[in-house]
Amino acid sequence: MNKDIEIAQQTPLEPIHNIAEQLQLTSEDWEPYGHSKAKLSATLFEKLKQKKSGKIILVTSINPTPAGEGKSTVTVGLGQALNQMRKNAIITLREPSLGPVMGIKGGAAGGGYSQVLPMEDINLHFTGDIHAITTANNALAALIDNHIHQGNELQIDPRKIEWKRVVDMNDRALRQIVVGLGGAKQGVPREDGFNITVASEIMAILCLATDVQDLKERLRSIVIGYTFDHQPVTVSDLKVEGALTLLLKDAIKPNLVQTTENTPAIIHGGPFANIAHGCNSIIATKMAAKLADYTITEAGFGADLGAEKYFHIKSHAGNIDTSAVVIVATVRALKMHGGVTKDRLMEENITALEAGMDNLQKHIETIQAFNVPFVVAINQFPTDTKQETSFIQQWCEARGYDVALTTVWAHGGKGGIELAKKVIAKANNSHSSFQPLYDINESLENKLRIVAQKVYGADDIEITKGARKQLRFFQEQGWSNLPVCMAKNQYSLSDDPTLLGRPTGFTITIRELRASIGAGFIVALTGDVMTMPGLPAKPAALGMDVGEDGRAKGLF
Amino acid sequence: MNKDIEIAQQTPLEPIHNIAEQLQLTSEDWEPYGHSKAKLSATLFEKLKQKKSGKIILVTSINPTPAGEGKSTVTVGLGQALNQMRKNAIITLREPSLGPVMGIKGGAAGGGYSQVLPMEDINLHFTGDIHAITTANNALAALIDNHIHQGNELQIDPRKIEWKRVVDMNDRALRQIVVGLGGAKQGVPREDGFNITVASEIMAILCLATDVQDLKERLRSIVIGYTFDHQPVTVSDLKVEGALTLLLKDAIKPNLVQTTENTPAIIHGGPFANIAHGCNSIIATKMAAKLADYTITEAGFGADLGAEKYFHIKSHAGNIDTSAVVIVATVRALKMHGGVTKDRLMEENITALEAGMDNLQKHIETIQAFNVPFVVAINQFPTDTKQETSFIQQWCEARGYDVALTTVWAHGGKGGIELAKKVIAKANNSHSSFQPLYDINESLENKLRIVAQKVYGADDIEITKGARKQLRFFQEQGWSNLPVCMAKNQYSLSDDPTLLGRPTGFTITIRELRASIGAGFIVALTGDVMTMPGLPAKPAALGMDVGEDGRAKGLF
Repeated sequence: MNKDIEIAQQTPLEPIHNIAEQLQLTSEDWEPYGHSKAKLSATLFEKLKQKKSGKIILVTSINPTPAGEGKSTVTVGLGQALNQMRKNAIITLREPSLGPVMGIKGGAAGGGYSQVLPMEDINLHFTGDIHAITTANNALAALIDNHIHQGNELQIDPRKIEWKRVVDMNDRALRQIVVGLGGAKQGVPREDGFNITVASEIMAILCLATDVQDLKERLRSIVIGYTFDHQPVTVSDLKVEGALTLLLKDAIKPNLVQTTENTPAIIHGGPFANIAHGCNSIIATKMAAKLADYTITEAGFGADLGAEKYFHIKSHAGNIDTSAVVIVATVRALKMHGGVTKDRLMEENITALEAGMDNLQKHIETIQAFNVPFVVAINQFPTDTKQETSFIQQWCEARGYDVALTTVWAHGGKGGIELAKKVIAKANNSHSSFQPLYDINESLENKLRIVAQKVYGADDIEITKGARKQLRFFQEQGWSNLPVCMAKNQYSLSDDPTLLGRPTGFTITIRELRASIGAGFIVALTGDVMTMPGLPAKPAALGMDVGEDGRAKGLF
Repeated sequence: MNKDIEIAQQTPLEPIHNIAEQLQLTSEDWEPYGHSKAKLSATLFEKLKQKKSGKIILVTSINPTPAGEGKSTVTVGLGQALNQMRKNAIITLREPSLGPVMGIKGGAAGGGYSQVLPMEDINLHFTGDIHAITTANNALAALIDNHIHQGNELQIDPRKIEWKRVVDMNDRALRQIVVGLGGAKQGVPREDGFNITVASEIMAILCLATDVQDLKERLRSIVIGYTFDHQPVTVSDLKVEGALTLLLKDAIKPNLVQTTENTPAIIHGGPFANIAHGCNSIIATKMAAKLADYTITEAGFGADLGAEKYFHIKSHAGNIDTSAVVIVATVRALKMHGGVTKDRLMEENITALEAGMDNLQKHIETIQAFNVPFVVAINQFPTDTKQETSFIQQWCEARGYDVALTTVWAHGGKGGIELAKKVIAKANNSHSSFQPLYDINESLENKLRIVAQKVYGADDIEITKGARKQLRFFQEQGWSNLPVCMAKNQYSLSDDPTLLGRPTGFTITIRELRASIGAGFIVALTGDVMTMPGLPAKPAALGMDVGEDGRAKGLF
């Protein structure tokens, strides 16, 4: 079996101008970045504004396991299948963070014959968007500490600075640090810490902004910390929203690439779904919808994280109308949810599979609660037995759920035709009457409770004393009418990553809140989820290299 | 008088493929980055290897003052002048660091009608090279701390880690920090600090590597710190040279842009000259020399810093043959060296000018010591009086120094014709018999002394106890046969920035050494020079914005 990178490097790429022409773009609509990447211009969206939007399809999944469910692979494969059926389709995905690439994953751009290309570029620096976000974030941090050092006219309390520096790296040593040491010339000592870039508010802002003006407005509103008398200090108080916008003026332009079958793909923005909102940019999704009849987009991790935030945060901010949802499941992952350990996944085990269906059932109920039509996609692996895949199919059919087997990893678009047909039928014939699970004007506490109960299946939430104090303060500040962005582990529906399947009888502990006023949501940290990952004992970086042909080695 | 950014934005740019065609490049030789930037391919240099190299001209200057001397502007103007004279010329410059752009300068790509364009891109993220260097640097840092956290097989002493993290930002609060706080799961607590990216060893390595293989070899050799029993630990011990090379595989490709007169310019690499070696990449300079009859390159700050390192470090590593040197001086800067304060520069002052000539004289003597022919360029400002410029001309002529007035800021290449003619005459008729000021096999102490005495005019060097201990250790390690890279303030020939003109009777204090074994030099820190600058009270960032046309505002 070929590795993803081998398949990627053997696939002939169309010059990017051919992909642009396929979308009927003129030369002012895009700029080349190398021969196989492009940035779509800010003026293009303006030009397309009057055009009718096509259908938007969201791909989500069950809770991920170390066995892998291949959500991005199915997203790419579905787009390719539509293209093979002569439907005009575009795939929109997130940009991978370098942190996990260097750490565990080695790559995050689909797999097998359903990848976005050039995967080496996409997995490394791509067109520099994440670097621009890192830079804007850290420029703001430097400007804050400099403001304090130069006299602190705004009376910022150094103990109450919420704005953290970032690196796009898994670097646990930077989680908790002390800065400004060394005497009066080196700044003001204070406790600080770094987040990974994809958890930063600027990443969320870039993904939720509808245009450059909105980007600047959101940057203005960022609350960086509080004064000695507890008043919020914003970027606008520091007068640096212009500089931050300038640093992001190219990063806000979506990136055009192609799949292994030369289907157009727009990759833009990359917040994690466990510690951030987990969706590619609104600009990318809306631009794709103007350019294609079917836009296939994806939200990170399971429906409890990515899809919930896609609906309550992204769709809310961008007024996005979703025609259908695909819920990806695999035999392997369902067996793990049913209690099988990773080393015994090769063995057929219908009993475990049956037990694991609970997890899929919960995510189906969530999508039903949002009232959007859905199709279950079983992403087939070579080790799956006929009995196992048939079991899931029958399970779905018995309950009236549309289901399709896909073999997009092995066969590309061809392996997704059945899924594509069912998705088209759902998207075109069903009438989507999307409804959020909470009213935006509910209290923050209620919104947290509703997500925990309706999406996670929790009995209730438990709010720590500190978080409760924050809730009151946020309410006083008039920040109650914002959606909530849950930071929760991705493996379990609960806040305990070891509880697989469909846990019941648990509460979700809200231990801390963070006000992302620029992004327009309140982050709730649950369990011990961290906004800066660490590297494993044997990082993927150890296997990376450049070959004699100048191409990447060791990206899986 | 128009601002640089206004002139830049009013200048029509040639599509970058026209510039590439002008250099007779085929489509495999380069990749577009937008419509007016390109990266030159790794294979191009291979292809050009058999071609004869053109002449290389180095532009250096007197010690800079806050009045500005316009060295980059003269570099660009000289290239443009050669182009106007139908000579085949390329300009090679460094990539600007974002730190000073956000801090004081607001831009560093020449000035007036002698700029490299698109200046907004060049001054901001450009093609992402500096971001790639930041990333590779910080990936190494994360891998080091992770190695220690995961069991520390190599027995790295956390108190003796020399490898610092970097940001391309002026951020004084990061100079001295403590990382790894928060308990056993957050890594190992230790003292640490950030440098600015342009001071990093990886920046130096990228600029001194002759190809990808050499890049990897140099990365392998980086000494990141020492074991508990005082043995050096290298990147090769950590087995991550492949990953670092992979992160730099595009950054090593030189960037092609154009000037305000559409003269080709190659901008690549950007180490500061006060805290690093101050020259653009060897690959860029050598590639330019294969493509053009005249390559005009520049080294940072005065000849005491940039030119000295250009000759002893860059030319040594790249076997570069320099045909002539241009020494840039201005009436304003010379008057400051003669004792005039910045607010009184508008007044004619021949007495001060005469006193300030000492500084120019010293730099001339330095270039003479290297035995390379030179021309003095007087970069004219509108406030200079006829008497003042005539004084300098006569002063030079009386001593037999070639001198030319330039008005390249105001008139572009036309303002540099006289200089260009004299430079051509020198480069073609004189026989350059370059000789370094020290033999590479001298002891490190002697090399430090020779630079201090012959280039700075110091009586001697004073080596602190700590630095002397380091010297002995480096000698034991076999690191004596490397050039030295002085970290010294740029304003004075001495290590005291307030001593302008040509100070005498001083010693240079060597307070600390750093072994940059990958770069291939030993850094000597003098005075209180810092490898992480700070922002001023009113950073340039406060004036930056994006206009309604989507273009940059507030870059000067």
